[in-house]
Amino acid sequence: MVSDHPATVPPVDESEATGKVAAIFADIKKIKQIEFVPLFWRTLAVNPIQLEIVWTALKALMHPESVSRSSRLDPQVREIIALAVSATNACPYCVNSHTAALQRLGLDQEALGEVMAIVGLFNMTNSLANGYQIEPDIRPSPK
Amino acid sequence: MVSDHPATVPPVDESEATGKVAAIFADIKKIKQIEFVPLFWRTLAVNPIQLEIVWTALKALMHPESVSRSSRLDPQVREIIALAVSATNACPYCVNSHTAALQRLGLDQEALGEVMAIVGLFNMTNSLANGYQIEPDIRPSPK
Amino acid sequence: MVSDHPATVPPVDESEATGKVAAIFADIKKIKQIEFVPLFWRTLAVNPIQLEIVWTALKALMHPESVSRSSRLDPQVREIIALAVSATNACPYCVNSHTAALQRLGLDQEALGEVMAIVGLFNMTNSLANGYQIEPDIRPSPK
Amino acid sequence: MVSDHPATVPPVDESEATGKVAAIFADIKKIKQIEFVPLFWRTLAVNPIQLEIVWTALKALMHPESVSRSSRLDPQVREIIALAVSATNACPYCVNSHTAALQRLGLDQEALGEVMAIVGLFNMTNSLANGYQIEPDIRPSPK
Amino acid sequence: MVSDHPATVPPVDESEATGKVAAIFADIKKIKQIEFVPLFWRTLAVNPIQLEIVWTALKALMHPESVSRSSRLDPQVREIIALAVSATNACPYCVNSHTAALQRLGLDQEALGEVMAIVGLFNMTNSLANGYQIEPDIRPSPK
Amino acid sequence: MVSDHPATVPPVDESEATGKVAAIFADIKKIKQIEFVPLFWRTLAVNPIQLEIVWTALKALMHPESVSRSSRLDPQVREIIALAVSATNACPYCVNSHTAALQRLGLDQEALGEVMAIVGLFNMTNSLANGYQIEPDIRPSPK
Repeated sequence: MVSDHPATVPPVDESEATGKVAAIFADIKKIKQIEFVPLFWRTLAVNPIQLEIVWTALKALMHPESVSRSSRLDPQVREIIALAVSATNACPYCVNSHTAALQRLGLDQEALGEVMAIVGLFNMTNSLANGYQIEPDIRPSPK
Repeated sequence: MVSDHPATVPPVDESEATGKVAAIFADIKKIKQIEFVPLFWRTLAVNPIQLEIVWTALKALMHPESVSRSSRLDPQVREIIALAVSATNACPYCVNSHTAALQRLGLDQEALGEVMAIVGLFNMTNSLANGYQIEPDIRPSPK
Repeated sequence: MVSDHPATVPPVDESEATGKVAAIFADIKKIKQIEFVPLFWRTLAVNPIQLEIVWTALKALMHPESVSRSSRLDPQVREIIALAVSATNACPYCVNSHTAALQRLGLDQEALGEVMAIVGLFNMTNSLANGYQIEPDIRPSPK
Repeated sequence: MVSDHPATVPPVDESEATGKVAAIFADIKKIKQIEFVPLFWRTLAVNPIQLEIVWTALKALMHPESVSRSSRLDPQVREIIALAVSATNACPYCVNSHTAALQRLGLDQEALGEVMAIVGLFNMTNSLANGYQIEPDIRPSPK
Repeated sequence: MVSDHPATVPPVDESEATGKVAAIFADIKKIKQIEFVPLFWRTLAVNPIQLEIVWTALKALMHPESVSRSSRLDPQVREIIALAVSATNACPYCVNSHTAALQRLGLDQEALGEVMAIVGLFNMTNSLANGYQIEPDIRPSPK
Repeated sequence: MVSDHPATVPPVDESEATGKVAAIFADIKKIKQIEFVPLFWRTLAVNPIQLEIVWTALKALMHPESVSRSSRLDPQVREIIALAVSATNACPYCVNSHTAALQRLGLDQEALGEVMAIVGLFNMTNSLANGYQIEPDIRPSPK
């Protein structure tokens, strides 16, 4: 599962993690209900502050129940946002993991295709609005 | 409402539109239930094929009922995708119009803030996964 | 030619396509004069509306003669635009396919290098103009 | 023509330029056959090396005759690449100046609209190919 | 200083802030040693969780002494990274505020110009490496 | 070390380089004190002008001592900018080579992690400032 060149830095092995990193690794597995710590988190662990900042933010926003917060968006919508951003930014790791997450949340291939079609549509309209430098004529109301 | 420099090309005035352009302008107002044709569409009209292609795509994906199609996503989710993409691409026109659309669809400021926080989170994680060149270890299952 | 992980969703096999998807697959091969349906289109086919929207747009703009339209740009210029956008967006699939298309249209390596050098130049100047927030002092004339 | 906040740094005034900066300013006006030095160049002049590097590159690629080089692309195509990149990168200064340049080179509004429609199309397909992580199945031939 | 359309949502006024938002506003002014809460933070406050996540991350990384952490990078280098990213992403607010921060930290116009020239250079090389799809032949050593 | 598909064009072999290309290849090895010409430069060599423009710019900015220029930034800071831009632009070749360069300049994994965390932070704040269209309220002073 892990290639010869998993990243530009050597990911921290779960068995080698200590202190704060070990605690966050355990929390990731518990909150996400997974058996192993994904490469993304093991890579961030090269700098424990970085791991803590990103995990704290992601936990609060994507697993709100774990911090006793109620979200206004359901889990599928939150992952759809993640996929839309990742497709736009050309992030291979992220596209794979968020598509897998949506699949686990029950989004089937056709609905995924609709999400992607809309992502594609607005990447088109964005480049048009920016390419013509069209000034906003529709604005949110201040209240 | 229209500034001195609304775009790099002169938008087509509704009163000057004829033929295919006039028909699409009328369709835009009918489908979107608005009183005027937004600058975005009036600008695309400098080339009627362009106007037709973009409107056909947007109508099919964002107003599926108008083409007798049933969408798997509700209108708010579709606009949330539009906003997530537009924020990531730095498109002033698009951010304004999709935020306004979400507001009309009943998304309040706090929920909008949650959408944006998630958009911000994944712009962060995308740059990290790409910046370390982390290879995917979580992939969607083939079925 | 097809790797073990060709995409996050299973591309539709030509032999399995039916109805609208089969018709579009046939049209793609006819219009592009190719023997097989590229992975890009087979992947979009997970959602037939998506396939239809993207193919309709691409056919109209990149194969104008097939829709009885006359283009103001020659085929090589249209593919050069495609490559310039794809290089800027970091799209591996797109860079490969549009470079191959330009090669088929007779652009040799040195001229391709000139295209790319210009793409690189304006990615540099764009980041400078945006990085200093320079306001436009040269604008198109309104007519 | 110059706003109150033309940039994050004070552009160098033509009347204050000396030495290498003055020489480059004169060369810009001569090569581009314009009466004033655009803000872009006056801003880069806050660091003379920067001004020299960017002007040398742009002069060689966009004004090849001035360095006794023959280009494989005509001036309109070179400016079309500039606009395609600038629209994709969301650069207001660049979109305005390259659209104006295309206008001076005789590209009319409808043809400009065709350029932009193609730019929009490939921003859509790029996000789709990246959003599905489709692997290249069409590659340029090695020769 | 504040325009008629400062954002797509109404920023929270300092005088109206209560609870967690008021506490973070006070912390921002104390840590950054400024007299007013910038629009960025007042806008994020439409959703208090968002404000808290972003401020916690920025405080830890950009004001490490305030969380008893020692940074390996000096404050000017940290702001240079901020500016490089903001120029690349075309963010007007961010380019302005990070350029101002660098100015306060003593970076003069010529050195700022050197930073920007390097930002421009690598936006050029990035689009070239991506535009040719060059595969890495220089990798960090695993240690 | 070189894969089967190193790029969309065949890189120029060192043994086949002649004239200007050979001279630049020799200069690259001398200035960078390396034993072989990296794929990036061998690929740019498909068009000698392109190779010359990019190498001249990179040499002047990243190896200032070689052109008798004094830089205001130390070599590590210059490479940090390169990495920040490359991570933001999703450039695999560039991320690998600039991370390797930083490693050679003595930046250890933890400090690299701090650089990346800051890159991630500002990709987040950029998308938020752009996603809310917050107007600048902090500007550099004109001096």
